[in-house]
Amino acid sequence: MPSYKAPVDDVLFLLKEVFHIERYDNLPGFADASIETLAAILGEGAKLCEEVLQPLNRVGDKEGCKRNADGSVTTPKGFKEAYQQMSEGGWIGLSADAAYGGQGLPHTVDAAMSEFISAANMAFGMYPGLSKGAYRALAIHGSDEQKKKYLPKLVSGEWSGTMNLTEPQCGTDLGLIRAKAVPQKDGSYKISGTKIFISAGEHDLAKNIVHLVLARIEGAPEGVKGISLFVTPKLKINADGSVGGPNGVSCGSIEEKMGIHGNSTCVINYDEATGWLVGEANRGLNAMFVMMNEARLGVGIQGLALSEVAYQNAAQYAKDRLQGRSISGVKAPGKPADPIIVHPDIRRMLMTMRAFNEAARALMLWTALKGDVALQSDDEKTRQAADDHMGLLTPVIKGVFTDKGFENAVLAQQVFGGHGYIQEHGMEQFVRDARISMIYEGANGIQALDLVGRKLPKDGGRALMTFFNEVTAFAKENSGEEMKTYVAPLTNALGHLQQASMWFMQNAVGKPDNAGAGSYDFMHLFGLVALGYMWAQIAKAALAQKKNGNGAVARMDSKLVTGKFFMERMLPETAAHLARIQAGSGSVMELPAEAF
Amino acid sequence: MPSYKAPVDDVLFLLKEVFHIERYDNLPGFADASIETLAAILGEGAKLCEEVLQPLNRVGDKEGCKRNADGSVTTPKGFKEAYQQMSEGGWIGLSADAAYGGQGLPHTVDAAMSEFISAANMAFGMYPGLSKGAYRALAIHGSDEQKKKYLPKLVSGEWSGTMNLTEPQCGTDLGLIRAKAVPQKDGSYKISGTKIFISAGEHDLAKNIVHLVLARIEGAPEGVKGISLFVTPKLKINADGSVGGPNGVSCGSIEEKMGIHGNSTCVINYDEATGWLVGEANRGLNAMFVMMNEARLGVGIQGLALSEVAYQNAAQYAKDRLQGRSISGVKAPGKPADPIIVHPDIRRMLMTMRAFNEAARALMLWTALKGDVALQSDDEKTRQAADDHMGLLTPVIKGVFTDKGFENAVLAQQVFGGHGYIQEHGMEQFVRDARISMIYEGANGIQALDLVGRKLPKDGGRALMTFFNEVTAFAKENSGEEMKTYVAPLTNALGHLQQASMWFMQNAVGKPDNAGAGSYDFMHLFGLVALGYMWAQIAKAALAQKKNGNGAVARMDSKLVTGKFFMERMLPETAAHLARIQAGSGSVMELPAEAF
Repeated sequence: MPSYKAPVDDVLFLLKEVFHIERYDNLPGFADASIETLAAILGEGAKLCEEVLQPLNRVGDKEGCKRNADGSVTTPKGFKEAYQQMSEGGWIGLSADAAYGGQGLPHTVDAAMSEFISAANMAFGMYPGLSKGAYRALAIHGSDEQKKKYLPKLVSGEWSGTMNLTEPQCGTDLGLIRAKAVPQKDGSYKISGTKIFISAGEHDLAKNIVHLVLARIEGAPEGVKGISLFVTPKLKINADGSVGGPNGVSCGSIEEKMGIHGNSTCVINYDEATGWLVGEANRGLNAMFVMMNEARLGVGIQGLALSEVAYQNAAQYAKDRLQGRSISGVKAPGKPADPIIVHPDIRRMLMTMRAFNEAARALMLWTALKGDVALQSDDEKTRQAADDHMGLLTPVIKGVFTDKGFENAVLAQQVFGGHGYIQEHGMEQFVRDARISMIYEGANGIQALDLVGRKLPKDGGRALMTFFNEVTAFAKENSGEEMKTYVAPLTNALGHLQQASMWFMQNAVGKPDNAGAGSYDFMHLFGLVALGYMWAQIAKAALAQKKNGNGAVARMDSKLVTGKFFMERMLPETAAHLARIQAGSGSVMELPAEAF
Repeated sequence: MPSYKAPVDDVLFLLKEVFHIERYDNLPGFADASIETLAAILGEGAKLCEEVLQPLNRVGDKEGCKRNADGSVTTPKGFKEAYQQMSEGGWIGLSADAAYGGQGLPHTVDAAMSEFISAANMAFGMYPGLSKGAYRALAIHGSDEQKKKYLPKLVSGEWSGTMNLTEPQCGTDLGLIRAKAVPQKDGSYKISGTKIFISAGEHDLAKNIVHLVLARIEGAPEGVKGISLFVTPKLKINADGSVGGPNGVSCGSIEEKMGIHGNSTCVINYDEATGWLVGEANRGLNAMFVMMNEARLGVGIQGLALSEVAYQNAAQYAKDRLQGRSISGVKAPGKPADPIIVHPDIRRMLMTMRAFNEAARALMLWTALKGDVALQSDDEKTRQAADDHMGLLTPVIKGVFTDKGFENAVLAQQVFGGHGYIQEHGMEQFVRDARISMIYEGANGIQALDLVGRKLPKDGGRALMTFFNEVTAFAKENSGEEMKTYVAPLTNALGHLQQASMWFMQNAVGKPDNAGAGSYDFMHLFGLVALGYMWAQIAKAALAQKKNGNGAVARMDSKLVTGKFFMERMLPETAAHLARIQAGSGSVMELPAEAF
């Protein structure tokens, strides 16, 4: 059975020593969240994840969700009680507005907690995760009446949320949506159509399900400019806010998937269901983007989460499993064999995972802090800069974290040898669960295209330039001998990223296929530089901690070695990404379709 | 439902135009295997794979194998009939000696056919695959009596084979084997112990199962030098060769695995089962290595096979699925959207898969030809050179083909988006099935260690030098303008491989951890150079074909473009591998075990 320990200490180290969270005390919520308070909250959250959610992870995988004859869906044993506990603890509304019953804490705290939840039980975490997304979309684009009606119930967990985009003929290309909305005299709409791949689409955890549905109002323009967003509850809502009868929303079937069996992925049929317009007509994509961006970051965090839990179990196994002798001489003479952690190739795998995990956690928290600034700062320029950062980093975090999360789950499984392939140890479940994160909320190829096609050129490349300037300034400020191990490779990698950006400017404007063919490599190149920048900052903080005599020296030494590993063994990949980008679209696009 | 078309034409092109198979006509079996004969045989084999085995692939995954209360195992519906058909067609004994009922064809033909079988149904293909390995081990190390007793039945498929190495405490480290063998007066042994992860360990396809079991004779030395190999049939064999009663061999349970559900992976208990020594006492590992090397190549071929079938289905889906519009302008104006094959990032994935598949098939066939030479040439030096090649390339083919096979199955699944994650299209099964190939028959880290620790230094590096010389000579001979696209990057990559080898010589002799920490990168660096060499040879043949006006021009043009893609987009990875190798073991090994 796999186990999990939430990395609370690492989160606190990053927030305190690397990002100096006290600098954010001018923002609402932060002043109440001292490091001691955060330690207490995250400690409580860790307990919930380790003791309640994690033990349900394999149960969820084995049992899966069952659709009953009446169309209702039963979640795996124990999920209902865990959901209850999570709701009552106020975890769903951790960063929600106090006006709607939330805890009003920074989103950064919620992001940290999201990692713990997904690591403990990714399939379970999607139920409250989607509620949080629905909350955000309605909080920003909903009418006052809608906010009053839905937000308190989403925060308390009494109701849960979903997002309904995909249809059989329409995944990435939302312009193909066919679901239709017919206006009614009372201002509502009758929604009809079929949506597929709806996560948490139907279940027995909450009393009602708040579906946010993209559909086309009769007579609307074709394509994405004719799509509107509707809030469509599974059950009707009475005037007093209580739940009434069925609303023409039903679960047609549950998909049989590779993983995340604990989450019900549904075909949802809308048969003249009553829905209400959220935001403006034909601007539905705009409103849905709030939820999608939130979800994309959340999915990126899932990648990190699975990499972390897979790593923890692989490290433990590597210390326990006796097999072979160290090539540099016997290490455990009293035992029949050495623990496999003595073997360099096992180390290589473990170090690869942890070098990603620790830097990815930093990048996630840094971006979450920017998210709080973007929402809450009273200075417009500061808000804008933070918003630029979010726009630029969201596709990187989604695409890179989930690719690496999956790769690392595979590496962790490899450490177990044959025992990783059988279900008993739970390692193969991590691989199956992690796989979806590369696909949903915009497949990673779409993230790459969003980054290169939309985020780079936006506002004359302002966001990218700001990022370049920040890293360059950091490198300049830390050009001394002590930081050379980290800063020199980072500067080199940044140079590759700059060359790649320049190449796109010079070669992709008239020939967009050159951008498309290099976009995936660019996303990963960007991710490596961003993670390398995090390692440089972590190393700086670790060196400072050692100098001050603060903190655990061994832990700081581990950080310094792991950062060095990243620089020596992971960052060199930037050169290959640059070479591929500069090769252009030629051999990628040259063959006619019939040749395939 | 996935489909499959065996790449018979590509095999014939490689054998005829790239490797000039007529040059091998002096070897037994080859003279009877003209290209026309091979076309006929492989055409028949392709039909069996496409029409019989492939339709059973999803059935096998869904049904799996069932252990009954009496310990017998039932294979999925249809497997028995398919096995019958395969046996009757003489496919199991394709390259077996005619003296034992085999077809006496070159092993190269068998290798080609193995790809088709694994692509169509990997889990099924393991049953006859293991029989072939048992045949080889007994044919080389068995006594005349053993050969007479077992080989004809293995060839006809009446009995099947297995290999029994692993025990709960002992996977990679065979020195830890505890199964014991007690000598009997009649020259037989009583075998007792528990073996785990035994593929095809118990099933209903054959009348008897020939287990080749590693065990320790009472009083034998500790470690690997005290291990012997025993042939231990599931059922006793009567003097007339017919099958008798139980022999103390039973299936304790079937493992629940991530994939290859159609193959029964068993815990096999030996309770004073009667076995006979194969080869010399305490030299069991030596005898088992014949079977292991055979199996390692076979597993490498599984990697290629899954990459090919996954590619075929992804390419078809990319041509059919309409989503989005090309960034370089609408391509299918009459349709609601363009087929997704117009998108550069989809192309990138498809080209990555095919650029591997075609070169890997070449490398597999080239190595299989060397295998025939090593066994059959009447010139000792020629045999030795071929044997050197086999020793050097076996870990590369096993490690690289299976890593890439899995990666490509993941890429193919990605092309399907959300539809790749649900079971319906069969893409997620390819991923789950491919995953085991990286683990069994020696996890890929072990392959890397075998390559760097054993195969490189062997005979003063003779095998490696021969390989370097061959590639260098080819580059020299083909230094003209026409071949520059292929030869220049190949030469550069070869330089990286040579630098890496040199680095090991200078830095790993006194510090073996430096070899261990770089071994995995070295294996992949070697694989890239070997595949690059194959592409250069394929390009040469394609250019010649075009000049001669032979063959399909479009197919040759596709080869030339795909080879260029390999050079531009896959080969640049060699620099990153070299950088990692040259970083040495420092940051890999520096942390104490407690830090993990």
